[in-house]
Amino acid sequence: MKDGNMSDERLIYLALGGAGEIGMNTYVFGYGRPGAERLIVIDLGVTFPDMDTTPGVDLIMADTTWLEERRDRIDGIFITHAHEDHIGALPHIWPRLRAPVYARRFTAALGKLKLEEHGLPVSALNVVDAAPSEVRAGPFRVRFVPISHSIPESAGLLIDTPAGRVLHSGDFKLDPTPVLGEAFDPETWREIGAGGIHAMTCDSTNVFTPHPGRSEASLLEPLTELFAGAPGLVAATTFASNVARLRTLAEAGARSGRSCVLLGRAMRRMVAVARETGLLTDMPPTLAPEEALDVPRENLLLLTTGSQGERRAASAQLSQGKYLGFELKKGDLFLFSSKTIPGNEVSVTRLLNAFSEKGVTVVDDSSGRYHVSGHANRPDLEALHQLVRPGMLVPIHGEHRHLRAHAELAQEAGIPAVIAPNGAMIDLTGPRPRVVEQVETMRRYVDGRESIGAMDGIVRDRIRMALNGLVIVTLLFDDPEGAPDVWVVTRGLAETDRGGAGLADRLEEEIGTAISRAGRGERTDDARLQALVLRRAREIAQAHIGKRPEVEVLISRLD
Amino acid sequence: MKDGNMSDERLIYLALGGAGEIGMNTYVFGYGRPGAERLIVIDLGVTFPDMDTTPGVDLIMADTTWLEERRDRIDGIFITHAHEDHIGALPHIWPRLRAPVYARRFTAALGKLKLEEHGLPVSALNVVDAAPSEVRAGPFRVRFVPISHSIPESAGLLIDTPAGRVLHSGDFKLDPTPVLGEAFDPETWREIGAGGIHAMTCDSTNVFTPHPGRSEASLLEPLTELFAGAPGLVAATTFASNVARLRTLAEAGARSGRSCVLLGRAMRRMVAVARETGLLTDMPPTLAPEEALDVPRENLLLLTTGSQGERRAASAQLSQGKYLGFELKKGDLFLFSSKTIPGNEVSVTRLLNAFSEKGVTVVDDSSGRYHVSGHANRPDLEALHQLVRPGMLVPIHGEHRHLRAHAELAQEAGIPAVIAPNGAMIDLTGPRPRVVEQVETMRRYVDGRESIGAMDGIVRDRIRMALNGLVIVTLLFDDPEGAPDVWVVTRGLAETDRGGAGLADRLEEEIGTAISRAGRGERTDDARLQALVLRRAREIAQAHIGKRPEVEVLISRLD
Repeated sequence: MKDGNMSDERLIYLALGGAGEIGMNTYVFGYGRPGAERLIVIDLGVTFPDMDTTPGVDLIMADTTWLEERRDRIDGIFITHAHEDHIGALPHIWPRLRAPVYARRFTAALGKLKLEEHGLPVSALNVVDAAPSEVRAGPFRVRFVPISHSIPESAGLLIDTPAGRVLHSGDFKLDPTPVLGEAFDPETWREIGAGGIHAMTCDSTNVFTPHPGRSEASLLEPLTELFAGAPGLVAATTFASNVARLRTLAEAGARSGRSCVLLGRAMRRMVAVARETGLLTDMPPTLAPEEALDVPRENLLLLTTGSQGERRAASAQLSQGKYLGFELKKGDLFLFSSKTIPGNEVSVTRLLNAFSEKGVTVVDDSSGRYHVSGHANRPDLEALHQLVRPGMLVPIHGEHRHLRAHAELAQEAGIPAVIAPNGAMIDLTGPRPRVVEQVETMRRYVDGRESIGAMDGIVRDRIRMALNGLVIVTLLFDDPEGAPDVWVVTRGLAETDRGGAGLADRLEEEIGTAISRAGRGERTDDARLQALVLRRAREIAQAHIGKRPEVEVLISRLD
Repeated sequence: MKDGNMSDERLIYLALGGAGEIGMNTYVFGYGRPGAERLIVIDLGVTFPDMDTTPGVDLIMADTTWLEERRDRIDGIFITHAHEDHIGALPHIWPRLRAPVYARRFTAALGKLKLEEHGLPVSALNVVDAAPSEVRAGPFRVRFVPISHSIPESAGLLIDTPAGRVLHSGDFKLDPTPVLGEAFDPETWREIGAGGIHAMTCDSTNVFTPHPGRSEASLLEPLTELFAGAPGLVAATTFASNVARLRTLAEAGARSGRSCVLLGRAMRRMVAVARETGLLTDMPPTLAPEEALDVPRENLLLLTTGSQGERRAASAQLSQGKYLGFELKKGDLFLFSSKTIPGNEVSVTRLLNAFSEKGVTVVDDSSGRYHVSGHANRPDLEALHQLVRPGMLVPIHGEHRHLRAHAELAQEAGIPAVIAPNGAMIDLTGPRPRVVEQVETMRRYVDGRESIGAMDGIVRDRIRMALNGLVIVTLLFDDPEGAPDVWVVTRGLAETDRGGAGLADRLEEEIGTAISRAGRGERTDDARLQALVLRRAREIAQAHIGKRPEVEVLISRLD
């Protein structure tokens, strides 16, 4: 049945999340006899809900049913770095898998905080040093290879398997001067490639960005100049986890005579963990908010959470008024040292306009001078392909169009590549990647304290109520043969039509008429009666207000 | 009380929509004694709903209560062009104002279709020729001055008032070769300026775009090249109302050996109206879809509606499968000859990925070669300011940040300017604009066939049901002093908690307990009982599933 593999065993790859979307990264490698492979999991990430498709939901993650059914075969979970789309699902999914988790120090510290918050044993999380340290996990030997990204201690994974060596890039950029952590060193990666890489799974996020990426270190000078030229208070926002950027911003503040204040819980937490793990040793001192209130405004730099316009974050609060005693006013400066993630444009624009109303000067990413991406751009991907020269490439971390473009890029360089969206199980054993199975992949939602399935209908009901409004019809029969009392309540619907009659009154009257005209069989059978009332309620609402609402029919029979 | 004006009378300006947002344009000019000004209205536009803030709503428009209260003082309604954000509210608001409406031929033809569809008299709409024709409306004399934009027969308005001449730019760009309609001629505008412009209200949409705008005519060559190089079927989408672009696309199709097919109702309607009004005389012939099915795929160009990813439009249907017999496949080309309007990024990306899954090559606006904007960029605004040299400038058609940047741009050139968001009434009589009053401005929603107020609470209830889910508690007392039957139904909530118990069961039991423990006064008073049940239902849901739902309490008392 198999080609290109003489043995009984095979090396497989499967994305349960992260391939076909940017977010929710959940990758699986397996080695062994088909159907009996030993497994390792790379990353357990989340993605974020939106009102269009997931109203009321708190977090979204891959449905790991496939893994749960093979729990006894999982030899380890490896977390490449501490971004939420790589680690956010750990406390939600780990209890279903209970395999040992491995991560570098900074990532592990943040992972432990998450496990603790959910009352889970932090002992599940093992701190691993960077290569040459290695973890043996069943047939796999895994090394964490430092690689530059926009959070401390990101790592690619070098995975030795009986079918050859696999390189999982993780999220990365090629940064020779990353301000914090290990620089990208082409020689290291050339050596890794020289050792022979059978297959590489590789970040595709920025495949459509045509120019080479820029270094974190390039930001200090323009930021210093910007801050020095600002006459009043300066506030700057970036992703809280971008500790190198926080350091750069604070340093630019110090050079322009400004003391730095961290505003927002996520930012204080990241800086605290980075200091505790010994990564952040030379950040200029920060002031507590209450200390800073005595400092002249032109000597302050506020670093604020909420670069995506999140409503409760420090940036949004500053745009609306005072936050912890600070207030931006005419002539002050607000800087987005960040990019707007697609889907957040409207929230960010709301912030821009709120600042505009206050007369605050806003500088955003449009000049390209005050933010650099954490992902490898198209020429950087080509450079890594050339350094590593993998035997084959599987694009990860992208929407379908990113995976396609990245696969085409590799193929143009003579590297076999495959588009493997979530659920496409790939056999990597032979000289070329080969789709061997389709696994059904879905999403699960964290909703309050419950975990609900994307297909459970719960969120669909919410969306329908939001789009159509709701009519509640209560029917009270005190004689099973007689006419019921009909009582209608509406939610989210216009109460009166243009004629001025109340919608609820109309519904009560016309539903009453419909029931009185129905046959005895329809009146006495709850299911048939519900169907009748539902249909009539929609027709009546359509006729009077031009909407077809959701309908809940409650029948009480006294006897 | 007034300065800079010796007479009793004044010239006022007021935006009810369009200043502080891009969309929903509704501007008012008035002249006369304060509080007794005669009024003209410019544009009655809509803006579009979104799931975040206006789920289920069909259209959004300015609340025109202020105008309705002054209906007897309105001497005319002038529509500058037929984009929905300028004319879309006509059939909804006109019945409340009933003043004569004036527009050029193409705009009027589309306006009449709208009135007809709503059963309103088309006689309300008067066709006006371009300047030198003029309309006398109370103390105003109004001329339509052709100006290039992205829809046929756009016009600025030259408004003579006893306090001087006002120029309302309308939406515009400086296009010397617009493919269709009148070219922008600097001499015309210099002459208009030389006649003395007391005040100009001016489009601010593209004030943040630093380079000069490009002409519609610049697109033909790159489009022809793109289509000629495509091996298979080509589909292209743009805004249906951009008739010049449709012509350019069809011409590029003809030059590359492709016959053109219009897919989508809006596009066929626009082309039909443009032909009927004599504007579109030299468009290459189009094929009906059924004729085109016999033509080889490499000789076809489909022009499709839905450039913003609208779910039911032709582009979205093509991305999902067949549409009227046409299907795109591997190697075919899909072109966005359009920009993505902020807020539509996610819908457009959904299309990009759907085409990627089919292997269709997608070309979007990122190269800047296949689309040009219909609005004046920053240097173009400066050019118009210099040609016209108005006595003062009021930026319109922009979010607050656009208005601010445009006002600053004018001020840098020595032109007095004022930021006048919706509701800020400006006295334009003197040498400088002056805010004299704040009018409360709101929004109204078209929802099915009803018009509802943004503050009515109806949409708020929908949003809350979507975010929180709903619990319906029915209490049935057959003895006013006794314990009720408690019946709970939920919608949009997890049905069971982690312990496996049904949420509805838990609620019934614990609400029953709470009522049995309540005092007689609480049990017999419906309002107090409702409050008790609502509070307890939220507490119980919070305890079991971690959510605080909306609650509807229905009390039936038999006696």
